[in-house]
Amino acid sequence: MGKHKLFFLPEKKEIEVEDGITIMEAAQRAEIHVNSLCGGEGVCGKCRIQVTQGSIRPDKNSISFLSKEEIIEGYLLACQAKIYENVEVVIPPESRLETEQILMEQPAVDYSDPEKVSVPKIPQDPMTLFEPLSQKIYLELPQPSLEDNMGDMERIIRELRKKAGYQNLEASFDCLHDLTSKLRDNSWKVTATITKDSDLWRVIQIEAGDTSDQNYGLAIDVGTTTVVAQLVHMKSGNVVGVTGSHNLQARYGEDVISRMIFACGSQEGLDPLHKAIIKNINSLIKTLISEKEIDVDQITAIVAAGNTTMSHLLLSLTPCSIRLAPYVPTANVFPQIRAAALGIDVNPNGIIETMPAVASYVGGDIVAGVIACGIADKPETNVLIDVGTNGEIVMGNNEWLVCCSASAGPAFEGGGIKNGMRAARGAIERVEIENGNVTYHTIGKAKPRGICGSGLIDCIYGFVQNGIINHEGKFNLSDRHKRIIEKDGEIQFIVAYSKDTESGKDLTITESGIANVIRSKGAVFAAIKSLMDYVGVKFDEIGTFFVAGGFGTYLDIPKAIGIGLLPDLDPQKIQFIGNSSLMGARIALLSGHAIERSAKIASGMTNIELSTYQPFMDEYVAAMFLPHTDRRLFPSVNY
Amino acid sequence: MGKHKLFFLPEKKEIEVEDGITIMEAAQRAEIHVNSLCGGEGVCGKCRIQVTQGSIRPDKNSISFLSKEEIIEGYLLACQAKIYENVEVVIPPESRLETEQILMEQPAVDYSDPEKVSVPKIPQDPMTLFEPLSQKIYLELPQPSLEDNMGDMERIIRELRKKAGYQNLEASFDCLHDLTSKLRDNSWKVTATITKDSDLWRVIQIEAGDTSDQNYGLAIDVGTTTVVAQLVHMKSGNVVGVTGSHNLQARYGEDVISRMIFACGSQEGLDPLHKAIIKNINSLIKTLISEKEIDVDQITAIVAAGNTTMSHLLLSLTPCSIRLAPYVPTANVFPQIRAAALGIDVNPNGIIETMPAVASYVGGDIVAGVIACGIADKPETNVLIDVGTNGEIVMGNNEWLVCCSASAGPAFEGGGIKNGMRAARGAIERVEIENGNVTYHTIGKAKPRGICGSGLIDCIYGFVQNGIINHEGKFNLSDRHKRIIEKDGEIQFIVAYSKDTESGKDLTITESGIANVIRSKGAVFAAIKSLMDYVGVKFDEIGTFFVAGGFGTYLDIPKAIGIGLLPDLDPQKIQFIGNSSLMGARIALLSGHAIERSAKIASGMTNIELSTYQPFMDEYVAAMFLPHTDRRLFPSVNY
Repeated sequence: MGKHKLFFLPEKKEIEVEDGITIMEAAQRAEIHVNSLCGGEGVCGKCRIQVTQGSIRPDKNSISFLSKEEIIEGYLLACQAKIYENVEVVIPPESRLETEQILMEQPAVDYSDPEKVSVPKIPQDPMTLFEPLSQKIYLELPQPSLEDNMGDMERIIRELRKKAGYQNLEASFDCLHDLTSKLRDNSWKVTATITKDSDLWRVIQIEAGDTSDQNYGLAIDVGTTTVVAQLVHMKSGNVVGVTGSHNLQARYGEDVISRMIFACGSQEGLDPLHKAIIKNINSLIKTLISEKEIDVDQITAIVAAGNTTMSHLLLSLTPCSIRLAPYVPTANVFPQIRAAALGIDVNPNGIIETMPAVASYVGGDIVAGVIACGIADKPETNVLIDVGTNGEIVMGNNEWLVCCSASAGPAFEGGGIKNGMRAARGAIERVEIENGNVTYHTIGKAKPRGICGSGLIDCIYGFVQNGIINHEGKFNLSDRHKRIIEKDGEIQFIVAYSKDTESGKDLTITESGIANVIRSKGAVFAAIKSLMDYVGVKFDEIGTFFVAGGFGTYLDIPKAIGIGLLPDLDPQKIQFIGNSSLMGARIALLSGHAIERSAKIASGMTNIELSTYQPFMDEYVAAMFLPHTDRRLFPSVNY
Repeated sequence: MGKHKLFFLPEKKEIEVEDGITIMEAAQRAEIHVNSLCGGEGVCGKCRIQVTQGSIRPDKNSISFLSKEEIIEGYLLACQAKIYENVEVVIPPESRLETEQILMEQPAVDYSDPEKVSVPKIPQDPMTLFEPLSQKIYLELPQPSLEDNMGDMERIIRELRKKAGYQNLEASFDCLHDLTSKLRDNSWKVTATITKDSDLWRVIQIEAGDTSDQNYGLAIDVGTTTVVAQLVHMKSGNVVGVTGSHNLQARYGEDVISRMIFACGSQEGLDPLHKAIIKNINSLIKTLISEKEIDVDQITAIVAAGNTTMSHLLLSLTPCSIRLAPYVPTANVFPQIRAAALGIDVNPNGIIETMPAVASYVGGDIVAGVIACGIADKPETNVLIDVGTNGEIVMGNNEWLVCCSASAGPAFEGGGIKNGMRAARGAIERVEIENGNVTYHTIGKAKPRGICGSGLIDCIYGFVQNGIINHEGKFNLSDRHKRIIEKDGEIQFIVAYSKDTESGKDLTITESGIANVIRSKGAVFAAIKSLMDYVGVKFDEIGTFFVAGGFGTYLDIPKAIGIGLLPDLDPQKIQFIGNSSLMGARIALLSGHAIERSAKIASGMTNIELSTYQPFMDEYVAAMFLPHTDRRLFPSVNY
């Protein structure tokens, strides 16, 4: 078999590969990220690269995503292009993820005050009880005598009962090993680390002297796109560091479905995905501890929250039955284990809790969100919505909770849309159309590279309000706007002209792109409406409508209502809560009992499986209109 | 450094060693057992060997244990003799342990009937509840549907709740890994293995199909001298195999104290002792499973009982603070762990429970004994006594329990006594002296090699009854028995003449040997008496006096009473219960809640520390007489 050299630009990284390997595979081996939504199926068109030296014959899939000029310039889809000679490849900016889109925290929340770990603050909220999942307790033990010669461990437990007040304490096996000398060499002055596992507090470590201040925990949001970790000082509850990175699993597929396909496509598919997320986490830990000059051994507890598939991949559990009906995960509730058992570089006896899931498509991230916004503790009925490729919705109060997951599609994340992109640098995130004039601004004030979800919503709102499209999302060709062009057989609206864009090409929105957004908003709204009808709650009975995740951050609420994505509520009732998955994980880290509470919340939540729920189908069809076929649902919308 | 060859006979094993290594060390490396009571200090004289080729210069310690003839014949103590040239060494029979002394079971107990696991049977005894520590439960799961799409593990737990009736169930992490395919590949028909850990039942394994019959447990008595294992079929409760071997730790020291010295003498002392007992256990397992043609994976639970030091060594915990005042173990209660974590070859997820101890010298073997004889469950006051180098005594009822450990010394095990030996082949175990005539018989009807504990007791009883010694244990020289001789400066009584013995030498009892036995019996009786006075119980208030261990097996009760070792009770009340440590371990294996019960029994038992308890000192002095200074305590003794 022939070997060929592949040279990546701008990385200047060379790799040798065998005959017939795709450029995508080669990039994965070289650890170079190339976007991909479809997991290498050649259908999303997100992995465009340019061959600048050597040549690769264009394939059918690639050609369907490229203009003739691009084909001549050597553009191809990385997942389709197979290497049979030495080549040089340039990965253009639009095929790379950038870091701005990592939602690390909601700036409005003061993380440094343990009193405020639950946001918003609820009086006597059980979630706000400050009882960290791992605690270091300094002990000055009475020395043994013939009258008091219990075992060393029993002596420690007796003292812990007095000092910490916990009765159900047990020694871990590991902490017994050098206990005898540790106590005697240190004049019976030691610090015990205890961790909570359901009703039990386990003594996992005995250290010499007083180390009670040197105890840290990690709250981790394991997102499909990004992974964010907060370093928390367990004694004070202060967040002392936060960092994030892209989920390295992206090189095996951009979204949850393509990663499941990768994991389940072969015997060894799971392992690279598991290793990728562990590598992610370890690299975040390294960043966090080097900033604060602490030792990994001082990290004794982790709470991770992610969707059900991410939780499975984190724990190296196969997600293979999640994807297909009847959508069954290996487990929804995960046992507490040692983090080191997963290869995570923290204290070897440190524990990891994975937030429990409700179902295959309502994961621990959503349960963490419920904890974060306190829905399960309030008498009034609230809603939590997290919109990504799936829109997960929870509704309820301290008596009942229902939830569902709507397959919104990737439109709000820029997927499946020509010129769509995530909310990264250069993304058009705001568009105003007034009297037919278009103004916009981009994230980072960079040259426009594409249009992200909030930009798309703004556009469509502007289009319909200005009569550029009709209520079905079709361009008005009778009174045609000057920016409407026809190119490559599609009617398109130029949002940014070629002279202003990074690529030097027009940034347009096509009619099919608009249709995709309408399908997505229709699915989300139909899900909300179905859930409300299921429990018999009306819009005006909702207390607060929490919008979680990156999606909300750039959202213009009246416009989101205007296109019929969000229900027509008083905008005051709609509250962005940022990364509620991370927030919930941190609350669980600092209020250990929130873990058990989460399992109860998860198992007590009624999950409506929308894919076979007829009322949802009807609502979906009704919502495929701007703002909705039933105008009475959107009284405030005035176009 | 020079290297020398050492050739062991009768093993015909050759080993090469460096200059200055002792023969004992060389034997340990060659895995050849040589007796030793003192741990290589040169003071017990039990490790005699004969150098038959090459020569080693006799040392001071060796000479003090040898006759001139023996020195000329090349006899030396193995622990003192250092090798500086090639030598051939014969290990004589008296320096080897033999296997007859392994007390595997009490033949009177029917192990095959789970109804009888508690001996004696007590009506409605909670210990007899049949609820094995590990259970395999066959499940035919309903297949998931969109209406019933909980997680795979949750589905298993739901079914287990129905079928086994346990509510507090948790998945172990390991059993989640291949769960998805295991369920689907086997039409949702699987067998779950669940193990009890306090209040929790943990699912540790999922197997394809119905394997519920293939589940075994091990009850192990980890004795200082011998290790005995029973293989128990968990579903039926039947004992399907039993085997025993000498504790391989013996090569590092014969008794508990010398092993503690070995373990704590150097940094690496603990490891060989831990490895030795694990090797023991694995070899017993191998024997048991090959007999029954079962797979090690079918062994899912172990309960081990041993004294506190043995339990520490089993778990690789340092016993270094046990030995010296204030006698503090690392722990009295040990966490349940995976047996594989100790290197034990059973199911990798199989568990091991170690019976909890009361204190440094009242261990899990005694607690297991309490479970076995049911003392803690009866309203009447009973006594359990286990006599070895230490005599451990427990007294009490279902309201209170007290215990103590008396340092009886090794006399009853043949230690510290000229011609003393353990109850092995060739040991004189019965001696009758009638009208001055001596008759005896030996274990295995072999030529006499020495005198074991029961033989010594018979002798001393015969001596004092026949006026051969007085009540202080001194030989009556005025009316001197014809077997009394004076040799090597000591007055001795010939029990077996040289013509009849294996060594061809007279087997004698010396006056100092008699004094040692009197000290031992005095310590045991004083301990019993002190305990009874402490709680204010009189002899006639005792229900049953249980005698556990190998010691009891050969004991003649009236003679044991006659020398003042056992209290002067109606012999009907004295009951030998054999290896009660093993029996208690098996009960705990088959009645999982007996583990928690044991911890409660252990922590609720009052341990009297005799070494500083003045009433014991007084009782001890009073008991240094035959039968006792206070004759009223022994009304039935008629000499």
